[in-house]
Amino acid sequence: MKQSKLFTKTKKEIPADEVSKNAELLIRGGFIHKEMAGVYSYLPLGLRVLKKIENIIREEMNKVGGQEILMSSMQPKENWEKTGRWNDLDVLYKVADSAGREVALGPTHEEIVVPILKNYVNSYKDFPLALYQIQNKFRMELRSKSGILRGREFIMKDMYSFHTSTADFEKFYEQMKEVYKTIFTRVGIGHITYLTFASGGTFAKYSHEFQTITAAGEDTIYVDESSGTALNKEVFNDEVLTQLNLKKEDLVEQRAIEVGNIFDLKSKYSKPFDLSYMDEKGVKHDVLMGCYGIGLGRLMGTVVEALADDKGMIWPHAIAPYSVHLLSLGEDENILKEANKVYESLLKNNIEVLFDDRVGVSPGEKFADADLLGIPLRVVVSKRSLDEKGVEVKKRSEEKGKIVSLNELISLLEPKS
Amino acid sequence: MKQSKLFTKTKKEIPADEVSKNAELLIRGGFIHKEMAGVYSYLPLGLRVLKKIENIIREEMNKVGGQEILMSSMQPKENWEKTGRWNDLDVLYKVADSAGREVALGPTHEEIVVPILKNYVNSYKDFPLALYQIQNKFRMELRSKSGILRGREFIMKDMYSFHTSTADFEKFYEQMKEVYKTIFTRVGIGHITYLTFASGGTFAKYSHEFQTITAAGEDTIYVDESSGTALNKEVFNDEVLTQLNLKKEDLVEQRAIEVGNIFDLKSKYSKPFDLSYMDEKGVKHDVLMGCYGIGLGRLMGTVVEALADDKGMIWPHAIAPYSVHLLSLGEDENILKEANKVYESLLKNNIEVLFDDRVGVSPGEKFADADLLGIPLRVVVSKRSLDEKGVEVKKRSEEKGKIVSLNELISLLEPKS
Repeated sequence: MKQSKLFTKTKKEIPADEVSKNAELLIRGGFIHKEMAGVYSYLPLGLRVLKKIENIIREEMNKVGGQEILMSSMQPKENWEKTGRWNDLDVLYKVADSAGREVALGPTHEEIVVPILKNYVNSYKDFPLALYQIQNKFRMELRSKSGILRGREFIMKDMYSFHTSTADFEKFYEQMKEVYKTIFTRVGIGHITYLTFASGGTFAKYSHEFQTITAAGEDTIYVDESSGTALNKEVFNDEVLTQLNLKKEDLVEQRAIEVGNIFDLKSKYSKPFDLSYMDEKGVKHDVLMGCYGIGLGRLMGTVVEALADDKGMIWPHAIAPYSVHLLSLGEDENILKEANKVYESLLKNNIEVLFDDRVGVSPGEKFADADLLGIPLRVVVSKRSLDEKGVEVKKRSEEKGKIVSLNELISLLEPKS
Repeated sequence: MKQSKLFTKTKKEIPADEVSKNAELLIRGGFIHKEMAGVYSYLPLGLRVLKKIENIIREEMNKVGGQEILMSSMQPKENWEKTGRWNDLDVLYKVADSAGREVALGPTHEEIVVPILKNYVNSYKDFPLALYQIQNKFRMELRSKSGILRGREFIMKDMYSFHTSTADFEKFYEQMKEVYKTIFTRVGIGHITYLTFASGGTFAKYSHEFQTITAAGEDTIYVDESSGTALNKEVFNDEVLTQLNLKKEDLVEQRAIEVGNIFDLKSKYSKPFDLSYMDEKGVKHDVLMGCYGIGLGRLMGTVVEALADDKGMIWPHAIAPYSVHLLSLGEDENILKEANKVYESLLKNNIEVLFDDRVGVSPGEKFADADLLGIPLRVVVSKRSLDEKGVEVKKRSEEKGKIVSLNELISLLEPKS
């Protein structure tokens, strides 16, 4: 993509009410546009990041046998009344049509996925099953000051698993812990993300969440580096420490953002809809359920919060909008010609490249924009690089660059297939 | 995918209030699930079709330089008040939060895309531009009896183009006519889809829509086969016939479904938001706009309506959920072994295959399910095919099959890359 054709431009100003680092950088970089508190549109660079996160998550969900579906945002009131959440869930948006008939705008999809499944299963032979979607959610958040970390409208991957025994559920649940670790590692925050024990919700002694360490985190966690686990402050007490075999002196307090969670739902949502199955002997039982969420925007925002420096964003390669940011410096015809040649070579080798081909923009501005946009590798064609018969390559995460030949550059870059 | 693992099953019954052919077949086949009138969830087979349509559309939008974005469903009331549509658009859903603050649920995105663009453009050099998204829309349709042809919630591709001159707009508009023809051809309904002159809306003498001939169509059109164009009944009069140089006797009346439309918006939406640019002389002008829509569910439903027969759906290869429906008939161990071998070979050759490996299901049921699901090529492994040292291959659209070797089968099937 030629930057001269990209409709967004970097900006110096941000909306006055925007206080979070992720929103500030993403808006200044032209990745997102704020529509109102907690509601953002994704612009080309931001959508590219979002889609890469989406594809990583989809691949991992498919690997564990997840079947992808796409459920509706508009949801029947009756379903929500059945579970008691029509009145009890304070974040639920309700919409009426002109005749006054109300529907819910889905903040989560237990009330939809269970009735869907009820159409297709009845025997123990139909289980286990895992369904997931990557879909837009609506939640009436009163405070929406965290940029894309906490939205009123946001894209989420929600998986629901269905089982005939606790043992089978637990096996899948353990598998999902590993899948989540893989996802956060692939996205580039595995080294600062911890499986964290949190308060148990309705049934279990604890629930499990994944927390990424960053100064802007809303949560406080206590990390045990040696085991790679952590405790949410809400369950940080002597009894729990003893149960989990953790020692207070090994734990380090950190601020963190919850980037994923997994829940044991037991029969909480299968019961109200009578989602059941017949066992080998023809005896009816409730189906057991788990659910597993990751907010895609929240994950993207967390990467910004955790990895950015004072100059701008730093994207891990796997979710960067482009792999290479190519800059032509100076308006000399030979420079532009050489830069175009490099651009064409990279495209031919299936390397995703943003080419800052803009004329009338100073080298200082181009460098500042490259730092802000945070594409992992910067490649500069300038008078100096021409003199040295190469291009100047610098990682966004490092201070110093070096001159390499075009062939070396291409062999450096494993194309993303 | 092994059919024994697919969580959906075919059904005989459909919801009592469902009258359209597309909803009947898609629900019976397990492609979609009805949540309420005009609101459907997409199940694995349906989502595969939807994603293939989405990818074809995305490829064609990118080819004309469209930049993909993803705008929000929740939209500020102020924006809709600026264009006068907060009160005037009867399909607009309005949602209030607990403090009574209202927002719109986007039925279309002119009110959002124009303010976004205003942040980034000001000179004639920034144009032309085309932005598009593939995104969920909400419209308060009072009658929702047409299955996925007309939803209260539905996925749409909406592109918006921006120009500094009428000539530039018209050039792009003509290009989009061709792009739309290409899309409908790739999806498999090019031969029954016509560029149709319809009533002009706010400005132009006519608007253009694309209509696909099918008995269930809501519209009546008059088709001129020789020129490949048509007239919507609403503009069918002597004056228009003369202007378009069409003869009444050449026209054939047909029922049709509108599968896409393209509009000249002039400055209708740029004016209220003061989306303007400076020309070469520093003089300010309004930006000119076009918009271009395709409903993905509507397109999918149209394919069902237009191409299905009395046994079920018939998917064109490019948007079929799978390329091959492999059936094993009979429970003989050799048959299952051979079918598994065929399955593995197809997978290895990147051929998308649904394998009906179910045991305890009669050949008659398997054939009926295959006809209902409408995968373009049926491949049967049975005692007879084993005896003849091959597999039986039959196109869904044809009556008779033939025996071919596994190698012949694979060379028949161009893998979709």
